[in-house]
Amino acid sequence: MDQIKHIVLFGAGNVATHLSKALVGKGFSVVQLFNRTEDTGKRLARLIGASYTGSLQKVEQDADLYILALSDTAIPEMTSRLRVRRGIVVHTSGSVGMEALQHTASQTGVLYPLQTFHKGKRISFDRIPVCVEGNLPAVEKALVGLAEQLSSNVHVINSEQRQILHLTAVFAGNFTNYLYAIAEDLLLQYNIPFELLKPLIRQTAANIRHAGLFSLQTGPAIREDTAIMDKHLELLEDHKAYQEIYDLISNQIIQHKHRNGKL
Amino acid sequence: MDQIKHIVLFGAGNVATHLSKALVGKGFSVVQLFNRTEDTGKRLARLIGASYTGSLQKVEQDADLYILALSDTAIPEMTSRLRVRRGIVVHTSGSVGMEALQHTASQTGVLYPLQTFHKGKRISFDRIPVCVEGNLPAVEKALVGLAEQLSSNVHVINSEQRQILHLTAVFAGNFTNYLYAIAEDLLLQYNIPFELLKPLIRQTAANIRHAGLFSLQTGPAIREDTAIMDKHLELLEDHKAYQEIYDLISNQIIQHKHRNGKL
Repeated sequence: MDQIKHIVLFGAGNVATHLSKALVGKGFSVVQLFNRTEDTGKRLARLIGASYTGSLQKVEQDADLYILALSDTAIPEMTSRLRVRRGIVVHTSGSVGMEALQHTASQTGVLYPLQTFHKGKRISFDRIPVCVEGNLPAVEKALVGLAEQLSSNVHVINSEQRQILHLTAVFAGNFTNYLYAIAEDLLLQYNIPFELLKPLIRQTAANIRHAGLFSLQTGPAIREDTAIMDKHLELLEDHKAYQEIYDLISNQIIQHKHRNGKL
Repeated sequence: MDQIKHIVLFGAGNVATHLSKALVGKGFSVVQLFNRTEDTGKRLARLIGASYTGSLQKVEQDADLYILALSDTAIPEMTSRLRVRRGIVVHTSGSVGMEALQHTASQTGVLYPLQTFHKGKRISFDRIPVCVEGNLPAVEKALVGLAEQLSSNVHVINSEQRQILHLTAVFAGNFTNYLYAIAEDLLLQYNIPFELLKPLIRQTAANIRHAGLFSLQTGPAIREDTAIMDKHLELLEDHKAYQEIYDLISNQIIQHKHRNGKL
C-alpha cells in the first residue's frame, strides 16, 4: 500500500466538513466530493478545493482513499452501488461494522473521529481520538499513518469495541448535553442566569481525570436524602418529563450504591 | 451591622471544610468549630486554628457570624436548639429556606456555594458562585461583603430561586457525573480506555458557553435514528438499568424536538 495522497469524499455533513478541512490543512488533496444535495455539496467542495459530483458514475477511479462520511442509514445505500478498483474505502461511523464495506473494494477500513461536531463551529482535530480499523495489516498501517497526521490521539479499535465506544459517547456526550439543556430550560423559566451553573458543570467535567467516577458521586441521591428528592420531584410537578428523569436516575444512583457497597 | 470578623462554624463535612479554609485564607478568624462527631470535628478545627466543642451550651456567644454548614436534615435539629444573642446565623444549603433559621437569631441569612466539593480535593473558591440571602438589608449587605472576599461570583438569590438552582445543579452536576460513571463502567467491561471519551466530555462541557443548548443536541435520538438506538438498546441487554436510562432520555430528546419544532 502506497501512501495516501488523493482522496474522494462522500458527504457534506458535520463529519465530512471537519474531517476534510483537517485533511486539506495537513496537505492532503481532496480531489472530488460526492453529495446528493447539490448546493451543500458544492459549498463544501469549494471550501476544500475539490471538484463536485452528484453522480456515482462520475466518481474518480484512481484515488487512494474513499471516505464515506455519511449517516449510518446512507452507508448501505452507497455501498450497494459503489465499486472501487483501487484505493481504500472507509466510513466514519461509530456504529456500522467494517464488513458493511466488503463489496465496495478489496481494501476497506474505518476512520471514526470520536467527537461532537457542529458545522458552524471550529474544532481542532489535533487531540480528537481517531479510531482506526483496516481489513488488512497494510491497510490499517496506511490509515493509522493518515490519522496520525491529523491527530495525536489515534487508536486501533475493532468494530465491536467501536460500537461500545459510540454507545458510551451517547451517555457521556449526547445525554449530558440534554441534562445541561434541561437545567438551562428550568433556570430560564425562573429568571435565574445559567452563568451560575457553569462552574459546577466545568468542575464536574474536570473530575473525569480521576478514575472510579461513581466514588465522586455527590447530591441528594447518593446521600439518600429523600426529603430533598421529594421536594425536587414536587418542584417538577409541571415538568413531567424532567420529573421522570429525576426519579429514574436518582433511584439508579441509590441502587448502584447498595449494589456496589460504595461510599 | 459591623463587619464580620469572628466566625463560629457548625459541621465538618465537605462544605464546612472548603468554606472554612477559604475564610481562614482570606484572614477571617474561625474561633470555634461545633461538630457532633469529635474526631472529624477536632481534625478540621486544628486545620483552621479553631477551638473545638461538641456541646451547644459551650458555643461562643459573641461571634459575628454562625455558619451552619450542615446537611439539610441536620439543620432543623440544630435550629430547634441554637439561640444566638448577637451575630448573624446562616446555613449553606441549596434547598432549605432562610425562614428555617428564624428562631435562632434576629439576623439570619444564607451563604450557598454552588459547587461540588470533595474533602480530599483542593478547589479554588475564587470563581465559585456564592448565592447570598439575608433577612434584613444590612444583613444581606454584610454577607455580600464577606462573600465577595471569597469569590468574584456573588449573587443575591432568594430562597425559591435557590431551590430551583439546586435542582438544576442535580441535573447538570450530579446526574452528569452518573452518566460519566456509566460510560466508564461499560468501557471497563470491554477493555476500552476511558481516555478515548475524555475529549468528547470536555467539548460537550465547553459547549455550554453557547445559549440554547438543545439546539446543539447531537446523536442518534435527535436524528431519530431508530436503527442505532435499537442496536444500542440491544447492546445494553445485560445492563437493564442503563437500558432504561438510554430509552427514557432518547425518547425525551425526540419528544422535545417535536414539541419545540427545533432543528
